[in-house]
Parts: sequence; structure tokens; C-alpha cells
Amino acid sequence: MKVFLISIGNELLTGKTINTNASWLGKKLTILGCTVENQITIPDSDTAISNSIDYFMNTDCSCVIITGGLGPTVDDITRKALFDYFGTSYYFDEEYWNILEDRFKKRDLKIPVSNRNQALVPDNGYVIHNPVGTARGLKFKKNDKFIFSLPGVPIEMKSMFESEIKPWVSNQVEPFFTSTIRTTGIQESVIIEKIDMVLKKENDYTIGYYPSIDGVDIKITGKIENNIEKLCNNITSKLGDNVYCTDERFIEEVVVDKAIKNKITISLAESCTGGLIGHRITEVSGSSKIFKGGMIVYSNNAKINNLGISRECIKENGAVSEETALEMSKNIRSIFSTDIGISVTGIAGPTGNTAKKPVGLIFVGLSTEDFNRTRKFQFHSSRSNNKRKTSQVVLEWLRMELNDVK
Amino acid sequence: MKVFLISIGNELLTGKTINTNASWLGKKLTILGCTVENQITIPDSDTAISNSIDYFMNTDCSCVIITGGLGPTVDDITRKALFDYFGTSYYFDEEYWNILEDRFKKRDLKIPVSNRNQALVPDNGYVIHNPVGTARGLKFKKNDKFIFSLPGVPIEMKSMFESEIKPWVSNQVEPFFTSTIRTTGIQESVIIEKIDMVLKKENDYTIGYYPSIDGVDIKITGKIENNIEKLCNNITSKLGDNVYCTDERFIEEVVVDKAIKNKITISLAESCTGGLIGHRITEVSGSSKIFKGGMIVYSNNAKINNLGISRECIKENGAVSEETALEMSKNIRSIFSTDIGISVTGIAGPTGNTAKKPVGLIFVGLSTEDFNRTRKFQFHSSRSNNKRKTSQVVLEWLRMELNDVK
Repeated sequence: MKVFLISIGNELLTGKTINTNASWLGKKLTILGCTVENQITIPDSDTAISNSIDYFMNTDCSCVIITGGLGPTVDDITRKALFDYFGTSYYFDEEYWNILEDRFKKRDLKIPVSNRNQALVPDNGYVIHNPVGTARGLKFKKNDKFIFSLPGVPIEMKSMFESEIKPWVSNQVEPFFTSTIRTTGIQESVIIEKIDMVLKKENDYTIGYYPSIDGVDIKITGKIENNIEKLCNNITSKLGDNVYCTDERFIEEVVVDKAIKNKITISLAESCTGGLIGHRITEVSGSSKIFKGGMIVYSNNAKINNLGISRECIKENGAVSEETALEMSKNIRSIFSTDIGISVTGIAGPTGNTAKKPVGLIFVGLSTEDFNRTRKFQFHSSRSNNKRKTSQVVLEWLRMELNDVK
Repeated sequence: MKVFLISIGNELLTGKTINTNASWLGKKLTILGCTVENQITIPDSDTAISNSIDYFMNTDCSCVIITGGLGPTVDDITRKALFDYFGTSYYFDEEYWNILEDRFKKRDLKIPVSNRNQALVPDNGYVIHNPVGTARGLKFKKNDKFIFSLPGVPIEMKSMFESEIKPWVSNQVEPFFTSTIRTTGIQESVIIEKIDMVLKKENDYTIGYYPSIDGVDIKITGKIENNIEKLCNNITSKLGDNVYCTDERFIEEVVVDKAIKNKITISLAESCTGGLIGHRITEVSGSSKIFKGGMIVYSNNAKINNLGISRECIKENGAVSEETALEMSKNIRSIFSTDIGISVTGIAGPTGNTAKKPVGLIFVGLSTEDFNRTRKFQFHSSRSNNKRKTSQVVLEWLRMELNDVK
């Protein structure tokens, strides 16, 4: 099914707000098996609204999803513009108005008169229930085409799409099933090369690659649930350790979940990442069960005086070295009495490099009761990206170690 | 001047890529004094491209900026589609092809034949120089309307807009001047109330409010530079301490700049923020001059054994208390031998609260040679947002303290 999207709102055209609604709907509709053919952003203006619907009516799209302009203020004109466009009369829904009044009363607020237009119902059209806000949506049909109008507030738009439009769309298209495979440490082109043979054998799926700084997400969509599951398993086994989950979790969630499950405590010594790894771990609720804390040792003195790195080690090898990373991980593990101590030291850039140590050079140390190891990485990005990439390889190494726990 | 935007690319319609180009262009054009009237996203298809230009030609917009589809691969069809639309013949630019070949050679790469179409030049049209990539842009004129076509790669699009389109646009519209005022710790509605009187006296400016979790940015645009400067100064003085800069810096940059200027060293003890504040400070290049490091003390044991908080203090007052925050800031300052020690302890949520201590309760401690103080905050948001808001008030307090340094 071909779908058209219309986003209404001056704030989208002036760049005040980034149009995340359109990309959210694009992703959802694609996964359901639809093709989004066109997306138009227009100002809160009668003419712009009717022109854009004219444009939609002239395409071969079966439906349009309009977002924005259903609020109670004067610049929210979508409702009236649609009533005009479809030439429908409308009535005031006393029952819904009472519900709205009650909702405001419960919060000790008086309902503004301007909200009254949110209780208008078209005679030739339907209202769409809004479970999380006051602005109900609208639905029209003309020349076998369907017109849906939803509020622009993302949380309301999303919940109304899920409850009303998604089931309707699913009925129009053959059912689709989706799997997600999240990877890290492997490039999109290498993934494609590795799984090419698996994909060639299959032909009833759609595959999408979504790269970000942390890794590449793979989304597979198809009509036969079993086949999608098999394909997903095949790809996962081809990509091996580069897959960190086959659901929607972040890698820090996977790490924290595994550590909790295995009762493994973790401490951190961060130099060039400056706290970012701790921040990512503590984004996960429940992380306090396994993350005891750590040190940010951003100066040589802090490394020596507070983390107990020997002055000789830094003098001989430099703060950015295998040897320093190793001592850092051993010492942090001992100071915080944890099962794993992990450390990172490197040159985030853009300055601080030397002839032998370029920007982006990173050493990671990992210490457990059984062993102490280090790894070297070389990134080639901005300060901020080098920090982010470092945090990702550290979380990935933690994930792998937690896999190996008996 | 009214401007139309066309974004070309299947990846934008499937939600694979968020259309940040459109919002970037929207912001830039608005500041220059233009009105973005329409923005259309279409697939890489001949028909869609010609339909969308038809749509533009029927509006009263003076120019359209098209982005995307100028790459070397088969799905990059914008160039040919535009040649067809404007019915122009074209020739192969040997000189530019040699330049491209040389560029590839320097990186030890053989130039793919598919890049040849990037050397095509229309007979009735112009090419736009690309200083950072291989895909040159295109410029056409028809019925007094101007058509610009730029690559979709943000870094290339932005640099070409700045070097070629911005000067052209600035010539078409009366010159505009812009000031930015960045605030924190004050709501949009309170700002509007406070500066209402200032604004009423003036009438030759446009004002935009851009709220985010960190605060509200105010952008003022107008035609008379002196008036804008005066208005900006008036607003800044009305808002007082809530303004942290009148340029484009982040608050962490302001803090680091001030600390470097005043030679003040800083250390951090983070509990509920888990490293986020250290991460934000170390995003700023040069921060190692003043940020010595800190501790992430995510467990009571870490607070007691590593940061030296007395067991009694935690037992009597709890880890989330004024007293603990105070000891934390004193101890971190002493352990890291810095001029300022700052600490934070709180309940990020969604769990961990008690009857007396709700989610979002935060204590910040600040210790210097001259005094030790604490502050209490109560946020009402998600775990992640509570952490972010905490980091913001900590940076804000640091900024204020650094203001007071003689």
C-alpha cells in the first residue's frame, strides 16, 4: 500500500523542531509493508492544507496520514480546514466536552474555552480516540482514498497510530513480521559481504541496514514468520560475536542484564572518556546492583596519587600506554573490590598527540581474578566521536567477558 | 523571500535517516529573513522529481533548494532528472574529471566509472562548486524562479549552502542580523513574561524561542544591527544570571573557558549522575588544563571506603542527603587537591525512592578553600532526564562560582 504523509506546523519549516514524527511513521509503515511515497511539510495555513491534499488526491497513494494542528490554540486550524475541504457539517459533542471538563477538574484546572473546538465531530467523517491527550483525531474517505489526521505531539500521535491506524493498515496489507539484529564492531559493507550467501537463498523478505556511530542495526521484514525467524538465526550465526542482541536493547542494557544475572560486579577507571562509560552504564535502571563506581583520572597526578599508578610506569611508557591501562584496571578492581576492573586511557584529540601517539589511540585494560589483559584501538574521528567509539568497545569487551562467565 | 525545499531519498521516507538537512536549512533560511513555505520529501524517482518541481513552479516561492541524489550510484538520478525537466543538453567536463581522478589517486584509489556522471555540465544551467566532496551542485533559472540542487550528505550540503546559496539569498533579501541568548534554569513562559515590556517597545525584529532539556535559547533577528544588539543587551539584563552566554557555546564550554581563564582546578564526586558531568566537561577540548578528575561513587561502600565519607553520616542522614553531599565535595577537593570540589548525590529513578526521599531528589555540594555549601533540587522526570537536569544545574553552579572569582 502506498502512503502519503503531511506534516503541518510552522515550527517544522523554520527548523525550530526536527520532524521526527515523519521518520517514525516512515519506519513503522515500512515495517508494516507499506511504501511511503511522499512526505510534505506545510505551514498552518488553509490554502497550504487544501493544496497538499489536492496533491495527495492526484497520486496513486491509498491513504494520507496528516499530523499537527489539532491543538486548542488559534494557530491550530487543521480541523476546520479538513471540514472545509471535505465539505462536511459538524456538531458539538457535549458528552466529550464533559469528559474534557472532568479531566481538567481533576487537575484543579478550569478548561479554556478554546478547547471547545476539540469536541467538534464531522457529520461525514469519524473521530479517532486519543488515549493520552485532549485532541481527538479525524478520519475521512473520499474517492476510495483514506485521510487520517492526528495531533503533532509525538506521544499522542504514536499512541493513536498504534491503536487505530496500525490495525487498519495491517488489514489492508498482507501481514508482515519483523526481526531486529543489533551489531557492533563491523562495517555495513562487511556485513553485506558476510551474509550475502544467506540472503541470496531467500527472496521473500525486505532487509534494511541502519548504521550509527555505535554499530549497524539490521531489520528484516517478511510475510512468513517462520522464514523471518530462520533468516534472522542464519544471519546471527554468520555474524557471530558482532551481534549483541536480537531485540531493541542498547549494548549497556545487555551488559548490565548479563552482569546482574551472573552477579558480577564492575568498576571503571576512565581517562580520555572522562565519565562517559560510567554515564552509559548508569543510564540503565538497576545498574547499581553491579556497578560499584570508579575514578575519572584525567591528569597524571590523579593517576599516580589517587589510582596508585607508579610514577615510573607513566614516565617510561606514558599515560597513554598498554602498561598504564593494565595498572589502571588492576588498581581500580582492587580499590573498589569488584570482580571486573576495566580501564581506558587514550588521546581523544584534537590536540595532545605526539609523534608516536596519534589522536584516536586508545588502550583498554581489563582485570579479573584470573587474568589481566589490554587491547589497543586506533580511531580517526572527532574528540566527541573518539570518546563515544571508545565507550562502545569497552562495553563490547565487557559483554564478551560476561558471556564467558561459567 | 519565499523558499521551497525538496528532499530526495528513499532513506528519508522509510525513516532510515531523519531529515536533519531540512531543519538545518529551515533554521538558516529563517535567520536570513526568508520564509520556508513548503518542504517535500520524495523518493529517488524521475516522476516524483518532476512532479515536485511542477508543484514548486505553481507556488509563489522564488526559489527551491533540492537536496540529495547527486552521488555516483545508480539510484542517484537527480542530475539526469533535472536535465530532462529543464530540457537542457549537457557535456562531459574533462577538466573536472581529471581533478576527480587525481583526488582518488592521492588516496591510492581507482576512480569508479560511475563517477563520470558527476562531471556532467548542463548547457542551460550552472554547476555549484563542492569544496568537500565530488558531487558538484546545479543551478537553473526558469520563469524568474531559481532552482538549486545540492548533495544530501550534510557536510557537503552545508558547506555549499554557506559558500554559494547564502550569499545569493542575502543579496535577494534585505540584510538580517541575528543574536543568540542562551539561558538555563528558567521556563519559556517566565522568559516571555520577564521580557514582554522590552519587546513591546520594539517592533522591527523577529524572536524565536528554542527550548530543550538544558534550557531555552532565544534567537532575535532584525534588519538594523544596532537595534538588535541593543535589544539583545536589554533582554540579557532582564534575564540576569539565567543567561549563560550570548553566542553558540554549550554551558560546559563556558565553564571550562572561565576556569582556564581564572586558573581554577575542578574535581567531581558523582553518585546518581554516574559520570555524566565528567563526560560533559571532557567533551570540551582543553578541559584537561582545569579538570583533574573525580570519583564515581555509585555504592555506599565506594562512598565510605574510597571517598572517605563517614559511615555515621550515611547511617544518620542517608546517602542522598545534604550532609553526604557536603562531605563528598569536601573530600573530593582534598583527595584531588583542586580549587573547587563539586559533588552530587540523588535518586535518578525510576526506583530507589523512599517515603521521605522521592525520585528526582538531588543534593549538590560545592567546596572551595573559603566555604562549603549544598543545594537541594527536585526533578520530576525519567531516569535519563533527571541525570541530564542534574548535570545542568551542577554546571550552572560551577559557572556562577567562576563568575565570582576575583
